[in-house]
Amino acid sequence: MPWRSIGIFDSGVGGLTVLREIMKVMPQEDTIYFGDTARVPYGTKSPETVIRYSEEIAAFLVKKEIKLLVVACNTASSVALSTLKRKLAIPVVGVIEPGADRAVELSATGRIGVIGTAGTIRSSAYTKAIKRRAPDSVVVTRACPLFVPLAEEGWTDNEVARLAAKIYLNELNDSRIDTLVLGCTHYPLLKPVISEITGNGVTLVDSAEETARRVAAILERKKLLRHASETGNHHYYVTDIPAGFIRVGNRFLGGKLGDVYQVNLEAEED
Amino acid sequence: MPWRSIGIFDSGVGGLTVLREIMKVMPQEDTIYFGDTARVPYGTKSPETVIRYSEEIAAFLVKKEIKLLVVACNTASSVALSTLKRKLAIPVVGVIEPGADRAVELSATGRIGVIGTAGTIRSSAYTKAIKRRAPDSVVVTRACPLFVPLAEEGWTDNEVARLAAKIYLNELNDSRIDTLVLGCTHYPLLKPVISEITGNGVTLVDSAEETARRVAAILERKKLLRHASETGNHHYYVTDIPAGFIRVGNRFLGGKLGDVYQVNLEAEED
Repeated sequence: MPWRSIGIFDSGVGGLTVLREIMKVMPQEDTIYFGDTARVPYGTKSPETVIRYSEEIAAFLVKKEIKLLVVACNTASSVALSTLKRKLAIPVVGVIEPGADRAVELSATGRIGVIGTAGTIRSSAYTKAIKRRAPDSVVVTRACPLFVPLAEEGWTDNEVARLAAKIYLNELNDSRIDTLVLGCTHYPLLKPVISEITGNGVTLVDSAEETARRVAAILERKKLLRHASETGNHHYYVTDIPAGFIRVGNRFLGGKLGDVYQVNLEAEED
Repeated sequence: MPWRSIGIFDSGVGGLTVLREIMKVMPQEDTIYFGDTARVPYGTKSPETVIRYSEEIAAFLVKKEIKLLVVACNTASSVALSTLKRKLAIPVVGVIEPGADRAVELSATGRIGVIGTAGTIRSSAYTKAIKRRAPDSVVVTRACPLFVPLAEEGWTDNEVARLAAKIYLNELNDSRIDTLVLGCTHYPLLKPVISEITGNGVTLVDSAEETARRVAAILERKKLLRHASETGNHHYYVTDIPAGFIRVGNRFLGGKLGDVYQVNLEAEED
């Protein structure tokens, strides 16, 4: 079943940075992206609710015969991943573990920074994942609430982004970290500005990139990769009117977003 | 029934700027604030959904015997106000009409600017309200998506806010407006920065202030104002865990937020 698609879901548009990396690493693969734009954000919702939403979306994608599911949403990755792994017969990949793995691998001093939304930082999901791998590491975290709206506004390389990054990151710089995890799917868009502030001494870990690599490794091991000569098709489903998703999504994918369909998950269940 | 409370609701924390003005104008009044923090934002949801949510919240507040309902949410004001007015026996006040009234009253040239969230600007709610009152006016609008996260982050008087305001407002300045409506409940917190950019030639209309004035006028006319010697009590209900609301809310009310209770509207309905 290598011909099957890779399914990717997020609460909104942010997971498109993961899709972008998957398209880069495996251009031969078909993908189905699901953005739960009517119910975004997940970060403020209870774990029970996020698990229920994640299961609904997974069921929708499994019906479309995906061969692997990427949970490209930090909140869903941190609360729903084990449930999805238990219930689904296909491999399930979240965004937190690949980022944590890579950070531990890259850090020489064991001093690792993590930035993310207020919800992700509050959940300590990355800190826990890093500490499980390297109990002696020092993890310094910082919520950067302005980064998501900056990325969605397309202000990724202007003075506003630069100043905001300075305020958020200067105290991380003071903590002498040598590795910084971009713990939010939106943040890769701000990578140039972030690395400008953190400087050469800090290696950035892009969870989107690491997740795409992990997906490729799993598909290869399971002999589920399509032949490299093929060209993938990409489909998009959202739960709210697609206009906003299309506008911001084209910014995320560099204008290469295809057709976007709106679905009603509650009707799907019947 | 002057002893009864004023009910105020918003999708989240933004309506607290309206509450703040009500507390300023009528310190003797009891208030009940409802923030639908589990279902925020409303701006991306369908009108049917927003009307349903608004009716649920109104029912909750009416049970608490409020004497007047303030819809301190731009989205709900623009889609649910007529339904609520028709169904409720008490006066219902939205935030759009008072702002539009005041803008038309203040503008000498008839060139009026409106800033708000992407959803409010897309709905043209203020433009329609202003045009109904002054068909010959020229209304120039601009969405300012960064202003809400800036206000919630407490970055209302720093270089990031100033630069963002410059980018958003410079083109409005070019349109030679003489009046600018702050068409989002969060924006009054950014008033100093906004007026710094727009300059003395532009009068700012603060919808929160105008709404509070409108409420006072209605209560006075209906002889529902409490005696000025009394001191109001203030209660807060939210639908999500209160932590985030308390943190940001104290910023909005200058540290004067009281006890916040979490309610489950779905359970209330039984």
